Amino acid sequence: MSITTVGLDADDTLWHNETIFRLTHARFVDLLAGHADPDPIEARLAEVERRNLRLYGYGVKGFTLSMIETAMELCEGEPPAGVIREILAAGREMLAHSVETLPGVDAALAALSERYRLVLITKGDLLDQERKLAASGLGDLFAAVEIVSEKERATYDRIFDRHGTGPAEAVMVGNSMKSDVLPALEAGAFAVHIPYAVTWAHELADAPERHPRYGALETIAELPDWIANLPELSAFT
Amino acid sequence: MSITTVGLDADDTLWHNETIFRLTHARFVDLLAGHADPDPIEARLAEVERRNLRLYGYGVKGFTLSMIETAMELCEGEPPAGVIREILAAGREMLAHSVETLPGVDAALAALSERYRLVLITKGDLLDQERKLAASGLGDLFAAVEIVSEKERATYDRIFDRHGTGPAEAVMVGNSMKSDVLPALEAGAFAVHIPYAVTWAHELADAPERHPRYGALETIAELPDWIANLPELSAFT
Repeated sequence: MSITTVGLDADDTLWHNETIFRLTHARFVDLLAGHADPDPIEARLAEVERRNLRLYGYGVKGFTLSMIETAMELCEGEPPAGVIREILAAGREMLAHSVETLPGVDAALAALSERYRLVLITKGDLLDQERKLAASGLGDLFAAVEIVSEKERATYDRIFDRHGTGPAEAVMVGNSMKSDVLPALEAGAFAVHIPYAVTWAHELADAPERHPRYGALETIAELPDWIANLPELSAFT
Repeated sequence: MSITTVGLDADDTLWHNETIFRLTHARFVDLLAGHADPDPIEARLAEVERRNLRLYGYGVKGFTLSMIETAMELCEGEPPAGVIREILAAGREMLAHSVETLPGVDAALAALSERYRLVLITKGDLLDQERKLAASGLGDLFAAVEIVSEKERATYDRIFDRHGTGPAEAVMVGNSMKSDVLPALEAGAFAVHIPYAVTWAHELADAPERHPRYGALETIAELPDWIANLPELSAFT
């Protein structure tokens, strides 16, 4: 037995994403600052986003709708001319934003793809994630792409069964402890956490304590060696 | 060789969908009727939707954003109080709408699932389509679910290879000539058109002329017999 399959998160693992959301948050606060108390603007937006997750799921379109809803609430139903138009424009810009891969990603993925089946596993808007993958130039390195509405234990069970040889011979890699690491470990896979500069509050969780299949790396450049140096998998059963 | 796999479109093939969009269109026209010339409202919304397809893709969230954008344009940037809030509410109601399967669907799918691998193949918002499938009670009958950003020849090639024994032994079934029938035929699959009462303008296309792998049925209740009565597949090669 050996590792056959590597699952990789996309946003903030392969390319910048949360920074773009943060910039749009800041733009949103600026936009409304003259019309509402700046302090609760950010908190109110986060609250509306969280409330709408169940209905909208993840991604830019739902976020844009949440910004509009927050503006309506903060301005008591009558946002000044231009505010809604600006929010629509900000959403469109996010959807057209250029994709910038993180340092070391191209080399690490090229090396990994020679030894393992790579599977992209990501949340977000379907079309937007496909666009970003195409724009990243990394598409050909992946054997499969799974855009999912939620990352739970069953998600990893299903994906590593379908595209690999099961979770026990798979590694999941990502920046979110909550979505990439913990449920993949629950499914019986290995999991590697590579933090991004900022993490969306919704994705925060504590690291697992001394889990034998867990690793923490500073950069994806260390990933090929980390996998290559794993002990024999029979040691884990 | 025989048919092993049946692909089924979801919206307007298994359950009502376009009627809900039409109702929301009508509500949108009513909402703006006092503030803009009613005649171009509908046409303008269709135009904005079409323009945004490339960026937003299919589904309720993009449609809601397009309604807001249209309202902004028609009211020259200053829609009256309540209009944006009403549009947001209409979008949310679409996402929470109860799912009503079309007549004959439950029995036909139960019969088909005993003989073939069923694959749901649909466009739209990821989370919304998963919700509707769960609410329909049909989820357990499907061997796989593929929510895709576009239905093209390559989409059917990939899906019938992955989940079946290739397009030559698969039938695709749906209400859209443009998305369900024509590209599936191009991929070498059989395709059955079952029209819905109304069709979104974007999905209109002419029927194929005397194509050997094409069928047109009035209701899904006829589908199990249609597949069972196909000639030997060797006759088609």
